[in-house]
Amino acid sequence: MQKELEQYFDRLWPITRSLTGDGNRESLQILSELVGLKIHEIPSGTTCFDWTVPPEWNVREAWIKSPTGEKIIDFKHNNLHLLGYSIPVRETMSLEDLKKHLYSLPDQPDWIPYRTSYYKERWGFCLTHRQLESLQPGEYEVCIDSTLDTAGSMTLADAIIPGETTDEIFFSTYICHPSMANNELSGPLVQAFLYRAIKALGQTRYTYRFLFAPETIGPIYYLSQQGEHLKKHLKAGYVLNCIGDAGQFTYKRSRQSNSLADRAAETVLHQTEIGCRAEDFFPLGSDERQYCSPGFDLPVGSVMRTRYFIYPEYHTSADNKDFISFEAMETAVARLVDIVRLIEANAYYVNQMPHCEPQLGKRGLYPNLGSDTSTRLRVAAMMWTLNLADGKHDLIDIVRRSGQPSGEILESVKVLLEHGLLKEL
Amino acid sequence: MQKELEQYFDRLWPITRSLTGDGNRESLQILSELVGLKIHEIPSGTTCFDWTVPPEWNVREAWIKSPTGEKIIDFKHNNLHLLGYSIPVRETMSLEDLKKHLYSLPDQPDWIPYRTSYYKERWGFCLTHRQLESLQPGEYEVCIDSTLDTAGSMTLADAIIPGETTDEIFFSTYICHPSMANNELSGPLVQAFLYRAIKALGQTRYTYRFLFAPETIGPIYYLSQQGEHLKKHLKAGYVLNCIGDAGQFTYKRSRQSNSLADRAAETVLHQTEIGCRAEDFFPLGSDERQYCSPGFDLPVGSVMRTRYFIYPEYHTSADNKDFISFEAMETAVARLVDIVRLIEANAYYVNQMPHCEPQLGKRGLYPNLGSDTSTRLRVAAMMWTLNLADGKHDLIDIVRRSGQPSGEILESVKVLLEHGLLKEL
Amino acid sequence: MQKELEQYFDRLWPITRSLTGDGNRESLQILSELVGLKIHEIPSGTTCFDWTVPPEWNVREAWIKSPTGEKIIDFKHNNLHLLGYSIPVRETMSLEDLKKHLYSLPDQPDWIPYRTSYYKERWGFCLTHRQLESLQPGEYEVCIDSTLDTAGSMTLADAIIPGETTDEIFFSTYICHPSMANNELSGPLVQAFLYRAIKALGQTRYTYRFLFAPETIGPIYYLSQQGEHLKKHLKAGYVLNCIGDAGQFTYKRSRQSNSLADRAAETVLHQTEIGCRAEDFFPLGSDERQYCSPGFDLPVGSVMRTRYFIYPEYHTSADNKDFISFEAMETAVARLVDIVRLIEANAYYVNQMPHCEPQLGKRGLYPNLGSDTSTRLRVAAMMWTLNLADGKHDLIDIVRRSGQPSGEILESVKVLLEHGLLKEL
Repeated sequence: MQKELEQYFDRLWPITRSLTGDGNRESLQILSELVGLKIHEIPSGTTCFDWTVPPEWNVREAWIKSPTGEKIIDFKHNNLHLLGYSIPVRETMSLEDLKKHLYSLPDQPDWIPYRTSYYKERWGFCLTHRQLESLQPGEYEVCIDSTLDTAGSMTLADAIIPGETTDEIFFSTYICHPSMANNELSGPLVQAFLYRAIKALGQTRYTYRFLFAPETIGPIYYLSQQGEHLKKHLKAGYVLNCIGDAGQFTYKRSRQSNSLADRAAETVLHQTEIGCRAEDFFPLGSDERQYCSPGFDLPVGSVMRTRYFIYPEYHTSADNKDFISFEAMETAVARLVDIVRLIEANAYYVNQMPHCEPQLGKRGLYPNLGSDTSTRLRVAAMMWTLNLADGKHDLIDIVRRSGQPSGEILESVKVLLEHGLLKEL
Repeated sequence: MQKELEQYFDRLWPITRSLTGDGNRESLQILSELVGLKIHEIPSGTTCFDWTVPPEWNVREAWIKSPTGEKIIDFKHNNLHLLGYSIPVRETMSLEDLKKHLYSLPDQPDWIPYRTSYYKERWGFCLTHRQLESLQPGEYEVCIDSTLDTAGSMTLADAIIPGETTDEIFFSTYICHPSMANNELSGPLVQAFLYRAIKALGQTRYTYRFLFAPETIGPIYYLSQQGEHLKKHLKAGYVLNCIGDAGQFTYKRSRQSNSLADRAAETVLHQTEIGCRAEDFFPLGSDERQYCSPGFDLPVGSVMRTRYFIYPEYHTSADNKDFISFEAMETAVARLVDIVRLIEANAYYVNQMPHCEPQLGKRGLYPNLGSDTSTRLRVAAMMWTLNLADGKHDLIDIVRRSGQPSGEILESVKVLLEHGLLKEL
Repeated sequence: MQKELEQYFDRLWPITRSLTGDGNRESLQILSELVGLKIHEIPSGTTCFDWTVPPEWNVREAWIKSPTGEKIIDFKHNNLHLLGYSIPVRETMSLEDLKKHLYSLPDQPDWIPYRTSYYKERWGFCLTHRQLESLQPGEYEVCIDSTLDTAGSMTLADAIIPGETTDEIFFSTYICHPSMANNELSGPLVQAFLYRAIKALGQTRYTYRFLFAPETIGPIYYLSQQGEHLKKHLKAGYVLNCIGDAGQFTYKRSRQSNSLADRAAETVLHQTEIGCRAEDFFPLGSDERQYCSPGFDLPVGSVMRTRYFIYPEYHTSADNKDFISFEAMETAVARLVDIVRLIEANAYYVNQMPHCEPQLGKRGLYPNLGSDTSTRLRVAAMMWTLNLADGKHDLIDIVRRSGQPSGEILESVKVLLEHGLLKEL
């Protein structure tokens, strides 16, 4: 999977994505090769709750020429150079005037910052601080050949894998950042490969829903359409972002804090070798802000590796291919599948021989002399499952209370069901 | 305020206070300059629950003369020298006999201990251990010219600041210790200046009640009169004592342990720079013993700096002006006002745009490009308030859950109410 | 008591116990000198829940002779040498063939392991690894003169001390291990002396039940007979095993985790000088597996010192007299009696003067001047009891909430009852 991940990464990397525009369409087209996406175009000016879909933004070119006529900043070279949603401009101006439109990071003099101004009309350029400081006085020529089309649209896409029931599990990621790797390309990539992995599981109990949309305004629009449906059917959901590096997992709980989403994700991620940092919901961050707004309060958490705000490369040109790991992304997909498996299997089971232990030995389920580690794990898992299968503990309770690997408990349920020692409630 | 605090301290310091007596009257008279006190005289012999108001104790003089006729211990010099509630005596006796009436601290040979014998008739003197050890054999003349008047009375005082409602917030401190600084003068001083500060807030929602009374018997009498009223109207109360030094705050919870008093005080005190040591209620200590007796179980905690029993100077002559800090006392008043503000503002609010976030930017409430620390704090506070304003979290819940400074959350509520984004339930 | 413990230990030590057999009868006969045991013989083949009582196993002799005719392994020398429940065999075989029936501990080359094969027909010998490695190629003569009698029986015993009520407290230990000291002889010994100590308390509120039975199959049979009775009447129970060494106490909670059994035992054991490691129930271990199976879910915990699985000597010849301490066993009996006392006294009490504190001084219960440590403890215990005696905290709650020694709280209840300040609810 790593090779494929890298190939898709390389194709998506150079595209300029934003809240709207052709770059988003192109990106979703590429992801369509992996996911059965349905693409939606939402006209600019559409209102949704307190918000309005902005004009469609596209950029043909954007650059600054030095007093000597040299193109010293060029959007073609790195799309972070342009302040997102910059209005068009074609002017010559002094360095002093130009500087009012330049953004850099004095503390990280070799990185280009990522900046946007979606809802206030502005133009600007981002550059390294070193470059900013090297600028000589004189007249600079500035060109931003952008369009902000009020007759345009915002592009988003969703996909559904139908299950046996209409209860839904939801994954959401965003498509609105230009060339940055952990935030954002890891999100759509992991989500696309997760789609494929869930598809490969065959018939599932739950229906799976996937959303790829620009951050904030995308989910706000989507909730204006699907919010009531999700309130009724959504059982667990996850925002996927910053999931491309090799750091420890981070799980940010849903606002409900003990929902099925939280219980399943924490159970699986705490058992990973590298462990998991779990934190309570907070209303800053990504699209969980909308899903967990008090009017919806959906069971949606966030699965990440190293979280936004924490790593210094966040929202700079240093969040690039070097920062991420395709091996770690493959593992992330695998752990998300483990979460899905646990949710799928989660149910209340009842021990059919609840008075004292059943005699496992006569069923060939108990070592009759000594035991190795894997046998001991298997027996322990069976013992725990039998003991807690009282119709009051669901499968996740059993995993958490027992501390046994979730895979062992899932396996024990299978074996005990086969031997008639367990029944689903 | 520090200057004034010191001036009042200096005036109150030399006065001999006890359960009863003219020293208490004089002290309350001085505090009347700051607080709208109503003074009550309770006749000796009055019964209240299991207790009886003791005879009124006054002392004209008390001293010991050495075999050479020198006054070696004199109550005029330090009122701690006299065992509290000593009966009158005028005798000459051997050193051996005298020693049965002398109290010192072998471990702190330069400090005079503070001792009383309220309910068993006794006389005695307290002195430094060094002085005790220097006494030479011979005949000593002892004089205690005290009166224990069964026709006297116990003096206590209260004050009320009426609010919009009859729900009450209560502060209680004691007036029964002779010349000691942290325990006790810090208590009445902070409470008096707090009265003035609350008065200065203007119209309040709650009615504020203040009690200045001798420890134990004072509140017992007061509860015999006001206990049923307080059970009905008291929403939060605090015993103030040992609040004069510069140590970390100590908050001793009410017996209810999660009352409004506890939630508000801990929220504010944990956010002070110096932090707060919070501890559960225990039935030893000060007047919270009565307020939190099971028949009343009032929501009364204790706000302190370094608690009684913990600092070695407690109940000795070393608990003096050097031990306390008027700057720290001013801060204590300020933090108590913060607690009051939080209680006043505490209510359930409801986000009027609960589906997704409202667009703060178009209301000028959101930075549209970058942000400094104070802006980030303001935005975070608004986001938290909007997210948790669901009618199920009160303001204190929002402060605690968010971890944001209580002042920021209070400010965010004000702003959001102004913009119609919030309504009080 | 230590001397007697040692005498009984020495008598019980050499006897070969197993699930069944004459060794068990003999052991119970010896314990009958201490406990009013009723001995039950359960025929082999009796079914109970999912299990069947196995044939009765007895061994006359068991040995291996080396190629030179020397008896190198002899069951008479150490009964651990024989794999428990070995079928009879009389054969001569090569070292290679013999080795398939030999068990040793490579990591502990001087210890003989303890192994059994109750439910699968096998024969085998256990020996030190050093001995195993010294065996020379050649023909070995093997003799196991054992019987597995399907017309035999399983022996177990119980005892009852009737109390004022039919509510029961239960102690259970097992009798099925050959010569090992901490696991198992400490269990039956401590339980037998505990019986005597409870008997000596005189009339008790609760009825006390004691079971001595082979592990697993014993309690399974017993529950098939008494399970429904115990579900109705059992208030607290404890499995006693691994209770002979001088290590810290271990308390393994019942599956209910906050039952009377758990609350009483943890309260007492946490206050021992050496402290207590408390752990949640897990369905591996000893007979609590049956008592806490979901169909019964009885309030049965385990009181131990160093727990099985944790100490390396467990289930080896090194778990011998050197490993245990008769002084520690006497202490264990004493602490179990403390648990019993706490359970006996546990009740809801009501302060008869709940409004403010009663004046303890006028009843001679309060020091009127200064105090030593024991007085302070006494006063603190009274204050806590009065404060929490509100009909909502039982005695165990008072001990735990106060942190005062359980003995002091018990004493305070006695004194306060005498003075009419307290009444049982």
